[in-house]
Amino acid sequence: MKFSIKKNIILEQLTNVSKAISTRNIIPILNGIKFDLNDEGLYLTASDSDLTIKSFIPSDKIESIDMQGTIIIQSKYILEIIKKLPSDIVNFEVIDSLKILIYTETSQYNLNCLNSGDYPQIELKERENFITIKALFLKKMIKQTIFAVSTQESRPLLTGINVKVNGELLECVATDSYRLAKKSIVLDKPYDDVVDIVIPGKNISELDKIITDEEKDVEIHIFDNKIMFKYEGILFQSNLLNGSYPNTSNFIPAEFVHIISVKLNDYFACIDGASLLTQSKEKNIVKMDAIADEIVVSSYASEIGKAENRISVERNVTDDISISFSAKYMMDALRTFDEEDIIICMNSDSKPIVIKSATDESLIQLVLPIKTY
Amino acid sequence: MKFSIKKNIILEQLTNVSKAISTRNIIPILNGIKFDLNDEGLYLTASDSDLTIKSFIPSDKIESIDMQGTIIIQSKYILEIIKKLPSDIVNFEVIDSLKILIYTETSQYNLNCLNSGDYPQIELKERENFITIKALFLKKMIKQTIFAVSTQESRPLLTGINVKVNGELLECVATDSYRLAKKSIVLDKPYDDVVDIVIPGKNISELDKIITDEEKDVEIHIFDNKIMFKYEGILFQSNLLNGSYPNTSNFIPAEFVHIISVKLNDYFACIDGASLLTQSKEKNIVKMDAIADEIVVSSYASEIGKAENRISVERNVTDDISISFSAKYMMDALRTFDEEDIIICMNSDSKPIVIKSATDESLIQLVLPIKTY
Repeated sequence: MKFSIKKNIILEQLTNVSKAISTRNIIPILNGIKFDLNDEGLYLTASDSDLTIKSFIPSDKIESIDMQGTIIIQSKYILEIIKKLPSDIVNFEVIDSLKILIYTETSQYNLNCLNSGDYPQIELKERENFITIKALFLKKMIKQTIFAVSTQESRPLLTGINVKVNGELLECVATDSYRLAKKSIVLDKPYDDVVDIVIPGKNISELDKIITDEEKDVEIHIFDNKIMFKYEGILFQSNLLNGSYPNTSNFIPAEFVHIISVKLNDYFACIDGASLLTQSKEKNIVKMDAIADEIVVSSYASEIGKAENRISVERNVTDDISISFSAKYMMDALRTFDEEDIIICMNSDSKPIVIKSATDESLIQLVLPIKTY
Repeated sequence: MKFSIKKNIILEQLTNVSKAISTRNIIPILNGIKFDLNDEGLYLTASDSDLTIKSFIPSDKIESIDMQGTIIIQSKYILEIIKKLPSDIVNFEVIDSLKILIYTETSQYNLNCLNSGDYPQIELKERENFITIKALFLKKMIKQTIFAVSTQESRPLLTGINVKVNGELLECVATDSYRLAKKSIVLDKPYDDVVDIVIPGKNISELDKIITDEEKDVEIHIFDNKIMFKYEGILFQSNLLNGSYPNTSNFIPAEFVHIISVKLNDYFACIDGASLLTQSKEKNIVKMDAIADEIVVSSYASEIGKAENRISVERNVTDDISISFSAKYMMDALRTFDEEDIIICMNSDSKPIVIKSATDESLIQLVLPIKTY
């Protein structure tokens, strides 16, 4: 293998595929990035066996292809090396079959490589029937749900995002059983199959980092046990989590006794401020009292003191309600809204709090209250 | 104590004095900031007993002083609270003698306080005879030396910066015994006493953060066992380290066999690039070979591969020299120069490497070579 390529072009694609490489990986060959150069161009592949990313640089974006070939280069060093090279053009040349020379006029790096024959065969398939979403909408949907996935390995399914497709309705749900985020979007055209899958949250986070141009389309190819996203020249394939995701639609109340309209930013500042005096960083519990046309958010820690923040609101009833919840979970939920005005919906101090836009039902955030007595 | 003040004014000074509060402090009262309000204005004091910072806000910068008084407020919460208050004006009011109410129209925080009677008496004295330095020069001198102080508590004196004053010459030296940084400046007028003191490096780092306006003057008041810096309304007093600092002037060779002129940025990139393949992050050793009119910087790690970067240079002799050193230490030293051209001076592969500006001798960086065989 021997070729020359612009530094920025190879660096961008190496950065993309390297997101599949896990720091926890114990299989040596999977610490490498597979370079596969033929007359079409350069294919780069990286995988942690759960997630595979394959990127393609067509031959017209490569300065010169002098010899085709395949080799596995350790990912740990190659990114840093390319970044620091003082030249626009980088030359690659395999020498002694298991060494690669990466060089410019004044720099040269001679890296030990791994045998491409040892790299696992990973098939990245496309389907004829796939879903197309604008990157902007996909990224927004990820941002609005990903924070609510569980980080606890004890319930593996909850570490994923549940994706359901039925006709032209696509719905994403994430929950760690203390709060829930749900976003639905309407597809441009109906999808033929009924889908109910769970995608590992950590892979979705990596996908989000790779998709940078929000104007482009992303293709989603869904299989029984895997899902493949196609974006620009990149194929991003993730395994699915096995099992039945809890039926979350029952969790979200349809009717509410208390509906409070608030200015998003004021309400956020109110909770943020009150949470300052909560002692534990993990469970920063604040109390919210809705009285007359005000909300008072307060916290109390015997050794420190107490905090009290208030804002004027609009309410549908005059009954008081007092409810306690995690300030962190509420702020996470509030950050997913772009609107100026939102509504806080409640039934009682022990029932879920639902946060919605005043005008759009496609995004629902739910936070469970915390009993403080 | 009762007063109202602009949020930004109190926040700036609280941020300044809080730099004296140590996270390792075990004396409860020293976790607090002392508020002392009289008709001149508000004095804020914080201390970890090794370092004391006192700041003054004159009464004409305070919106209203309704009742004078003194109280100690926990530093941990007050900064965050003031930062997040949604108003321009903040009100302070002591209630029940050991509680302070911090409030705006919509927010109120009720914090437990500490008794001001328990706060240590700390005298911050000025001298008639002091040194004046422009903040710009002081900050630059700190940046050029502080990185070389030792982080090892086993030789406490080396954790400080050695400051010597003799007539109009002020000289700072820092060394961890593997590298040394020395910067001298000429004072506007000679100082009467001969000074040879060691200031704790960590306190100098805090001083550097507090001095933000480089156009202002800083006064330096030196005592037998402490040093006081006066900048704007802030008094910054540090204890000195006891003992005799090593006589470092002997360490720096006066004459050199090899003098190599390099472009600073190219030489830096050369070392940075070669250091990528060094295995240990701590001792990233590179080898530099000066041959004919080139420098070749290289590294080799058997499991990874090898790196080689070269630049053209100007040399005073044609003899080759091959020398190994820590890339990190060399890059730390190079970062202290503003000039485009510097000179690398050497005598042999086992003698100190000295880095200087080609035109200005006031800054000297020294890095010891490492024997690799």
